[in-house]
Amino acid sequence: MPAERRVRLSPDERRAQLIAAGVNFLSDHSLDDLTIDGLAAISGVSRALVFHYFDTRQGMHRAVVQAARDALLDATLPRPELQPRERVHDVLLRITRFVDEHRGTFFSLVRGVASGDPTVRAVVDQAREANAEHLRASLVELGETDSAVLRLALRAWVAFTEETLINLASRPDEVGRPDRDEIVAFLERTLDGVVAAARDAAF
Amino acid sequence: MPAERRVRLSPDERRAQLIAAGVNFLSDHSLDDLTIDGLAAISGVSRALVFHYFDTRQGMHRAVVQAARDALLDATLPRPELQPRERVHDVLLRITRFVDEHRGTFFSLVRGVASGDPTVRAVVDQAREANAEHLRASLVELGETDSAVLRLALRAWVAFTEETLINLASRPDEVGRPDRDEIVAFLERTLDGVVAAARDAAF
Repeated sequence: MPAERRVRLSPDERRAQLIAAGVNFLSDHSLDDLTIDGLAAISGVSRALVFHYFDTRQGMHRAVVQAARDALLDATLPRPELQPRERVHDVLLRITRFVDEHRGTFFSLVRGVASGDPTVRAVVDQAREANAEHLRASLVELGETDSAVLRLALRAWVAFTEETLINLASRPDEVGRPDRDEIVAFLERTLDGVVAAARDAAF
Repeated sequence: MPAERRVRLSPDERRAQLIAAGVNFLSDHSLDDLTIDGLAAISGVSRALVFHYFDTRQGMHRAVVQAARDALLDATLPRPELQPRERVHDVLLRITRFVDEHRGTFFSLVRGVASGDPTVRAVVDQAREANAEHLRASLVELGETDSAVLRLALRAWVAFTEETLINLASRPDEVGRPDRDEIVAFLERTLDGVVAAARDAAF
């Protein structure tokens, strides 16, 4: 019996512990592999208790994905005290670090594995939307005109960034990954290119 | 009873008919909603016959998604007789038209709905890979140096394009969508920006 079984936790603490175990499980498994029985086993509690907290497998998936999204959003929250250009740089550096350190969680969030369920999909979309919105705010501070095409371009550029980071993180260790600063410099240049294209767009 | 029940089809024709009905179903439903019973009902055949052709629900999903991917790839196959710059322009114009005309199929392919299953996911990835590879070939013809970072950038730019087209296709009809030529001009400018960033990348 795992030691934590003997520790008395409040209901909130227990719920948080189960969710943390679920997020941790996502590091090297897909959401589809996360079952009520599995979460009970890795947490050392009964399946009845897991059901008590989440009602359904879908409810459990939702709670775990929301927690993973919050971890990503917290890790990449812009620092308002920075100048807008440095703020974007800093967010990119932290998101690159997050993907390096929590590869599995990022994969599960962004790649298809987590997206079969429409509610889960919506959770992931909220994170993208939030990232695009932070970018927009920084760019407008830098003098960019706010427009529908700028928003569209930033939303798509978030997808570009996800794809780039996932691709780099999937490279086998023996190939090696570029330096984080070099990745960020590349991403910043692509952002400049995309923003310039939005500025010139005829719609 | 639908008329097609009375038509004698060869096994290959019957299988193709079932797959076409499945792809058609994807225009306004997610892959998850496509069941053996459902496909039998819309095709006017028995569920035993659907099972006979696909064995499992997963097998049916795979066949339908492969057909949808092939439709997308056929619609966007580069025309070798064009000069490389025009070839890229032509492909972008045709992919933009495909998304307009087969919105649901494109959504199902690209968005999470189709990607819960790893095999389905792999099928979608093959289409992205093929598109990125065609682009690479055209760019190298235009004098671009072939490199790992160029390939990375093009792969991510395909994701950028998908996100842009999906986003535009999801706009409510009353908002209206920009002209296809304007969309393509915007996408071409973002491609130039991304390729320039890859050229300057330090990895």
